Amino acid sequence: MKKIYSIVTIMALGSTLSADSLIKSATNAGLAPIPSDTKALMKLIDNPKNPITKEKVTLGKKLFFDPRLSKSGLISCNTCHNLGTGGIDGVSAAIGHHWSANPHHLNSPTVYNAVFMSRQFWDGRDPDLEAQAQGPMQAAPEMAITKEMAVARISSMPAYVKEFEAAYGDNNITFKRIADTIGSFERTLTTPAAIDAFLEGDEKALSQAQKEGLQTFINKGCVSCHTGVGIGGGMQPFPVAKPYKYAHIGDFKGDQNGMVKVPTLRNVLKTAPYFHNGAVWDVKEAIKIMGETQLGIDLSEKEIDSIATFFTALNGKMPTLTYPELPAVTGKTPKPDTK
Amino acid sequence: MKKIYSIVTIMALGSTLSADSLIKSATNAGLAPIPSDTKALMKLIDNPKNPITKEKVTLGKKLFFDPRLSKSGLISCNTCHNLGTGGIDGVSAAIGHHWSANPHHLNSPTVYNAVFMSRQFWDGRDPDLEAQAQGPMQAAPEMAITKEMAVARISSMPAYVKEFEAAYGDNNITFKRIADTIGSFERTLTTPAAIDAFLEGDEKALSQAQKEGLQTFINKGCVSCHTGVGIGGGMQPFPVAKPYKYAHIGDFKGDQNGMVKVPTLRNVLKTAPYFHNGAVWDVKEAIKIMGETQLGIDLSEKEIDSIATFFTALNGKMPTLTYPELPAVTGKTPKPDTK
Repeated sequence: MKKIYSIVTIMALGSTLSADSLIKSATNAGLAPIPSDTKALMKLIDNPKNPITKEKVTLGKKLFFDPRLSKSGLISCNTCHNLGTGGIDGVSAAIGHHWSANPHHLNSPTVYNAVFMSRQFWDGRDPDLEAQAQGPMQAAPEMAITKEMAVARISSMPAYVKEFEAAYGDNNITFKRIADTIGSFERTLTTPAAIDAFLEGDEKALSQAQKEGLQTFINKGCVSCHTGVGIGGGMQPFPVAKPYKYAHIGDFKGDQNGMVKVPTLRNVLKTAPYFHNGAVWDVKEAIKIMGETQLGIDLSEKEIDSIATFFTALNGKMPTLTYPELPAVTGKTPKPDTK
Repeated sequence: MKKIYSIVTIMALGSTLSADSLIKSATNAGLAPIPSDTKALMKLIDNPKNPITKEKVTLGKKLFFDPRLSKSGLISCNTCHNLGTGGIDGVSAAIGHHWSANPHHLNSPTVYNAVFMSRQFWDGRDPDLEAQAQGPMQAAPEMAITKEMAVARISSMPAYVKEFEAAYGDNNITFKRIADTIGSFERTLTTPAAIDAFLEGDEKALSQAQKEGLQTFINKGCVSCHTGVGIGGGMQPFPVAKPYKYAHIGDFKGDQNGMVKVPTLRNVLKTAPYFHNGAVWDVKEAIKIMGETQLGIDLSEKEIDSIATFFTALNGKMPTLTYPELPAVTGKTPKPDTK
């Protein structure tokens, strides 16, 4: 009996130790938590070139939800980055103005935790959310508005003019400021999850199965790209080991060096369909394909299941958002153009 | 001096008396307040055939915002009845699936206070919000979903199944129940305004100019159609006295008797463009046209201004709505079809 007790004790200790060493192993591999400390979080999400203020976030949230920032008056940032459905639109390729599909068949990435990405867009062409926000507003198959029209629409509504005054100290409404305030709002869209509590040292934040999944995620090499606070967000070659099964869908080939933005895995169970062309709906198929194309390995069914179980630890707490009441149009507001 | 004081006293008394008599005059003309008393309000907005419950409203709100209830997965009730922009879409004719314009060039009416309408749709073809909600979901140029697909989509998400169980005591998800819960939510979208406090006896709730506007509104006969709690919502012939200036836009001719639903004037300053075909953007032009076509009178500029001033008393307090977090799709969820 004494021996048996000893083994149990060792197993229990081992389990505790292994959680601790798993945290170290995850941290060494580059995984990092969304800080629970507000000051640390603010430092992480802020942009020195466009410091977050309450006024900008309040205004940016309205603009994020405002369809008048599209040519038609019908499409807002929230149309493709729907904050009610994981920050995405749930279709393979984004649909925009006049029902245009994205010409490269690109899937809308989630806006949640996008602040943690080192670059924005699938080809990483923009450095931050403020720069990113300017793109879809102007893109012909997305919101299709001109800078001048966006400024004219917003400037025509006195309630918006007041909010710009509150945010910037003057009423100079520019397209850059419109995008900057949207960026400020988007920076606040972080979703802390069980993984974060675990990485901060709460060994019980993950279940045993989730811990095993994390171990598999690290051991198999997934973490080499899906790392950092964003659990993704850098640029990587795609594919590496084997052609991507659905490469024929769309003509996207990455940036000039074939580099592609690594999507965040935070809330990945809520953001199907997957990959730049939204070709895969089943997260387990996505894991399998990633093993093949990026790591050159055949993951077993058990390993795939284990990694998918780890993903449940990435389901974050979504911020509570009051749906904003937007200013009414005036006689000076340029009319929507649905053509 | 005594005489002057007397005149001032009489004028002051007169002003008080006139507010009181204006309330009586408005009430006699059929105007009625959104009750400030919660029980009275609940009685007014409830549907005995589909009693409002907290569970139905919570669920119905999610469904109202859920784009998966459209064939494409991109259009929700909120797309055309945007709760951030006065419950409307701000375009002349509704745009739906595959960017189809409403075939009759009909404008989306506001969902705010729609519970007070005696009939739903411009031709009044449906008796209540529950019946109405079934229409746009299925209409080919709107959300374009089949009953079966709507049920399959919602049934595929376990979180929704749980909410139907909470709302109905069983997990029988039907298209009727989907529409019924949306109706329950919409019934709560009432926006009490200064006019309501005034009609309930707060004589100071309206400014002098708003009172004069109300008087003009009554005296000129606007109130004969724009009456009741909804300040509109019944069926009336259109036009009456003179052809509608923009009758050539769209082919809508009302119901089989040429009757057209009278829109609510609540929040009218936030719900441009106006009329069934959304042809008029300027509220003063709309007032002028109504005088001509419906009342057969030429309203003076001063009268038009006065009525428009009264409309400021109809700007209601919008309910505070938390943007709902919607259930994630599962492997069983039928895919969106954007074709």
